[in-house]
Amino acid sequence: MTQNLFLSEMIRSELAEVVGEDFISVAESDKLVYSTDWSWMPQMWLDRGKPLATPDYIVYPASPAEISEILEIANKYRIPVVPWGGGSGTQGGALPIFGGILLDLKRLDKIIEIDEKSLTVRAQAGIIISQLEWAVNEKGLMLPHYAASSNCATLGGALAPRGTGTISTKYGKAEDMVLNMEVVLPTGEIIHTPLVPQHASGPDWWRIFLGAEGTFGIITEATMQLDLLPESRLLRAILFENLSDALEAGRQIMTRRLNPFVIRLYDPESTRSRIKKILGYEYEGAYMVMGFDGDPEIAALEESKAFEICEKMGGRDLGREPGESWWQHRYDFYYPPKNLKLPWMYGTTETITTYDKIEKLYWAVKNAVEGGFKEWDVQFIGHFSH
Amino acid sequence: MTQNLFLSEMIRSELAEVVGEDFISVAESDKLVYSTDWSWMPQMWLDRGKPLATPDYIVYPASPAEISEILEIANKYRIPVVPWGGGSGTQGGALPIFGGILLDLKRLDKIIEIDEKSLTVRAQAGIIISQLEWAVNEKGLMLPHYAASSNCATLGGALAPRGTGTISTKYGKAEDMVLNMEVVLPTGEIIHTPLVPQHASGPDWWRIFLGAEGTFGIITEATMQLDLLPESRLLRAILFENLSDALEAGRQIMTRRLNPFVIRLYDPESTRSRIKKILGYEYEGAYMVMGFDGDPEIAALEESKAFEICEKMGGRDLGREPGESWWQHRYDFYYPPKNLKLPWMYGTTETITTYDKIEKLYWAVKNAVEGGFKEWDVQFIGHFSH
Repeated sequence: MTQNLFLSEMIRSELAEVVGEDFISVAESDKLVYSTDWSWMPQMWLDRGKPLATPDYIVYPASPAEISEILEIANKYRIPVVPWGGGSGTQGGALPIFGGILLDLKRLDKIIEIDEKSLTVRAQAGIIISQLEWAVNEKGLMLPHYAASSNCATLGGALAPRGTGTISTKYGKAEDMVLNMEVVLPTGEIIHTPLVPQHASGPDWWRIFLGAEGTFGIITEATMQLDLLPESRLLRAILFENLSDALEAGRQIMTRRLNPFVIRLYDPESTRSRIKKILGYEYEGAYMVMGFDGDPEIAALEESKAFEICEKMGGRDLGREPGESWWQHRYDFYYPPKNLKLPWMYGTTETITTYDKIEKLYWAVKNAVEGGFKEWDVQFIGHFSH
Repeated sequence: MTQNLFLSEMIRSELAEVVGEDFISVAESDKLVYSTDWSWMPQMWLDRGKPLATPDYIVYPASPAEISEILEIANKYRIPVVPWGGGSGTQGGALPIFGGILLDLKRLDKIIEIDEKSLTVRAQAGIIISQLEWAVNEKGLMLPHYAASSNCATLGGALAPRGTGTISTKYGKAEDMVLNMEVVLPTGEIIHTPLVPQHASGPDWWRIFLGAEGTFGIITEATMQLDLLPESRLLRAILFENLSDALEAGRQIMTRRLNPFVIRLYDPESTRSRIKKILGYEYEGAYMVMGFDGDPEIAALEESKAFEICEKMGGRDLGREPGESWWQHRYDFYYPPKNLKLPWMYGTTETITTYDKIEKLYWAVKNAVEGGFKEWDVQFIGHFSH
């Protein structure tokens, strides 16, 4: 398509008419920026001297109406459109591998309404999650989707790929907080999903936008359920000699509904490598962090009940400090300089199963990875959470 | 269609070949049984001497494979199929208003597996909810969908219309407990939805079966998330002079996540009429029941925090007895002899909104109903819950 300069300029000028000349780019440097996300694939392509997959046009729309017009142009010329939020995806989902229009949504960054009685916020989908969080924090509220990517990812970027944050164990996934959304369909039609969730008048058809990563429509606005900022956050770390016992402790804490906002268990290998590198502790065994929040008395009681279970399963209390340090540095795992990066090749997979299969699954994956790629001396490390 | 006796008998015999002669009926008495559910419409038709909408064939399949064959026959002859569970629907959704095949699913009543480690049960969709509950109770577990219709409704009947039970405030709606389902599609194809929920590999497309009431497919089996039977259940009733204050107390209890398993507020009219009739108490004001369950110490602490809020909002403690009596008689509201029935004409509506609009919505509906039908001396009563 870009071969045909006349056609290419025609499309560019039509797009420019919608958003204005200042909000469209075909500069090579901009194209390169939008050809890499947080996944390892583009880094590998670069490393191997291969060309990156670049978009043909980078467009910065200011409204759903503009997006609607852009989609009509894309339909007319049959060219791909890729919505782009913070570019922090780890699976390459937003890479413009077929070129076309890269739709950067970050100008849609307005907070429309914070309702302090209903504990909801209505905001445009291009707002950075942390900025939204700071705004609701000022009212004593929080949006409990605490993603590792919050400082660069957008609200839409949390919803479209069904994001899960650090405190989802108590507060749910991003999708669980959505009350309603505004979506621009591929046809250009702008729709609003029902104002209230969990009615029983037919299926929740609108949930198909969650996880569709823009393919069924571009999320441009969402009303999210908020929570009160918790009065207290109690964190603690516990060390288990034995992974099985730690998993059983976690299962009991969860099935007894002791309501931790976080419970995260590092396997012995990640305890040895990641916990040492990020937090500076040297432990042998499986490192578990657990946290309880909300009313201080209730949180303390829940914590003591959970700790009883851990003790019974052979867990050794490491005290508050390593738990609090983990909380403070929880995003350092994913940012330079401490994140895993080339020349370390790596891939991240998330797997979900029921309690009866967790340990079996862990060993099956570990053996498959380490046994299957022996010649590369591959190491599998993992943690259990959410 | 039934005019043509030859065609009618041809279809009947094809269906009989699938399920066997013992499991199909065209008897008038059976047809009448399946022409009334728990909604007031068929009662009104009877009352006015109008004919009921009856099915042409009542079929009792024993397996998804038989259902698949039945749907193929229905497709061939282009006749409607209505799945039927306990027949306890209050909105007429299962009435065979276009005739055709009435598919009674209650022979699909097997419990396939109870997993005491993962806290799950896999069962066929035609099992009566209470029977399933008794079976898991024997293992110290519960399926926390405590619907008023549990004694006659089926598991599929809880899922297909997105049922909500009495203790959903803590445990969620029936649909929130589904891990996966087996569904027979209208084409006859039998599918199994993903084994694990809440993955992030694309949208949860299978949720469209929840709320579709059989139109997108017939649910024949489900794996449900269970909970431990709570060690304690603390119930209490509180009386508020003022509905606004009671609603504000409820809002604070919920937004502070004090985690009641039930919180139900009767408006002054239903306190005066229903609470008096069912529980025998005579109170003026808004009657609130709240319950906390699980670990006895945590439940007691949550209750005391919630009670503090109620006191601050002017609530008067009525003690445990009226709360426990409500729990014991909670289904009496809906069963003879105390349920509302003809010659009392009534309709039930469920409305959902955000906290900021609850009271306004209540008065708007009340005024619309009572003002709009003044000549009938209509009374609107309501409660707030879930």
